[in-house]
Amino acid sequence: MYDLKTYLKNKREQINKALDKLLPDSQDSRLISAMKYSLMAGGKRLRPILCLAASEAVGGQADEALPAACVLEFIHTYSLIHDDLPAMDNDDLRRGKPTCHKAFDESTAILAGDGLLTLAFEILSSSEFVNEKNAVKQLKVIYEISRAAGCCGMIEGQMRDISSENLSLSIKDLEKMHTLKTGALIEASVTCGALMGNGTKTDINSLKIYAKNIGLAFQVTDDILNIEGDPCIMGKAAGTDESRRKSTYPSIMGIDSSKEFAEKLVDNSLKALKNFDKKSDPLRAVSLYILNRKR
Amino acid sequence: MYDLKTYLKNKREQINKALDKLLPDSQDSRLISAMKYSLMAGGKRLRPILCLAASEAVGGQADEALPAACVLEFIHTYSLIHDDLPAMDNDDLRRGKPTCHKAFDESTAILAGDGLLTLAFEILSSSEFVNEKNAVKQLKVIYEISRAAGCCGMIEGQMRDISSENLSLSIKDLEKMHTLKTGALIEASVTCGALMGNGTKTDINSLKIYAKNIGLAFQVTDDILNIEGDPCIMGKAAGTDESRRKSTYPSIMGIDSSKEFAEKLVDNSLKALKNFDKKSDPLRAVSLYILNRKR
Repeated sequence: MYDLKTYLKNKREQINKALDKLLPDSQDSRLISAMKYSLMAGGKRLRPILCLAASEAVGGQADEALPAACVLEFIHTYSLIHDDLPAMDNDDLRRGKPTCHKAFDESTAILAGDGLLTLAFEILSSSEFVNEKNAVKQLKVIYEISRAAGCCGMIEGQMRDISSENLSLSIKDLEKMHTLKTGALIEASVTCGALMGNGTKTDINSLKIYAKNIGLAFQVTDDILNIEGDPCIMGKAAGTDESRRKSTYPSIMGIDSSKEFAEKLVDNSLKALKNFDKKSDPLRAVSLYILNRKR
Repeated sequence: MYDLKTYLKNKREQINKALDKLLPDSQDSRLISAMKYSLMAGGKRLRPILCLAASEAVGGQADEALPAACVLEFIHTYSLIHDDLPAMDNDDLRRGKPTCHKAFDESTAILAGDGLLTLAFEILSSSEFVNEKNAVKQLKVIYEISRAAGCCGMIEGQMRDISSENLSLSIKDLEKMHTLKTGALIEASVTCGALMGNGTKTDINSLKIYAKNIGLAFQVTDDILNIEGDPCIMGKAAGTDESRRKSTYPSIMGIDSSKEFAEKLVDNSLKALKNFDKKSDPLRAVSLYILNRKR
């Protein structure tokens, strides 16, 4: 049986070290302190791990994909900071700690989010990681990430999520919202990993199918955890979807069918990897981890 | 005498057409409608014009610099949307129209800003404008813009601006704040224009000095207009700096010395162009325009 726990622990350590190194010195800057506060507040590092694991799955070096992997966490963290704002989801707690606007203030939190988003592109275009040889590949990575995170991806998803509070969504609309809000960046994570690892087009297409399925599975299990999860383990409140009258998979299809749906999605993700060898075992293990996670 | 009025009018038309074309279709998206609302609400288009004029000044084609020029306006507009938010400057009026959060709502405005910022990098890395030949140049442009707009540039400047309300700043701290908040992106505008126009390092260094001086001159005249300007012409309220107890050039050095300082800065900007030929006449004219502007 594959030892995912050790793999995740090692990758998280590698990623956390790299994230810390990529941030400018925070000594004299309230802005950078706030960016660092949210970035280093824990978190599963799912997107960077997927990026590194995808790079390894296609036979690449994990190290080469590390800057892209880190940048995905910058963008994920910025989206959490902005989503938590009083004008959005108005959350006080994230990853078990006060949200950025609670620990600092609202204007600092808005700017910290902006700062993390912009720094992502500064890193991807920095001469430290770019040379004549990999310039075209690097631009493809920038395109994948900006497209997934942007107004036809994650941001549109968040807009739809906010606009649909108190509305009863159809399964189709709910799925579209999640595909945009979380699916797009998860798909970009494996795509960028595969690009950095010099994967073929066929590899990338299979990995995209893998990502689409685990992205949605992640969301379905998120909805289930919001009902059944332990707030102490999750580091955030439970039951918030119901009190906000949000459409969720359990609210539309019931909790048992939601669990079956999550299992089916994870099964599909594993099938998408059928032509990959042992190097994609971490990706396979991540699928199962998503199904059985407690937070 | 150089006919700047016609030059600006033509460039603005060219830029406005290109901006509109670069936005995704807004038909079904509240998010993109809000992005479009703020982007197309008028504005001087100073940064894109500087980018195009710098490209021409070094002998480049204005067309090649057009995507970079547009992206600078995307980023400028995003920064205005976020700066106007209730948690920041809390402004109701911008370019003579309700600010984005007034015309839409706060969460839409935050996301519209995020969307414009992210779209900037999507455009710069899009295969529509990128090929094997210009990939390295394009990455340099992305780096210049993200660095200038980021947490060691514009965003840090806005953080300092907010933090310094009700404080008496020294001239040195005031200048540093403005250099970050507006100077960095203005400098990036001419640098990116010169990069796209294949300018030499010497060209770029001279243009950076030009930009530093007009950037600061722009801020000094902004402070003067906030006291002496006509709100009807400016499209925004006057006297706001004093009521917010902001440190400004007039509040520190008096209005007459501020005017002399602006003249000196514009003079320095013209000196920086002394080795450029007639092709840099638009840049020279922009310097004088900044000194004499009414809005």
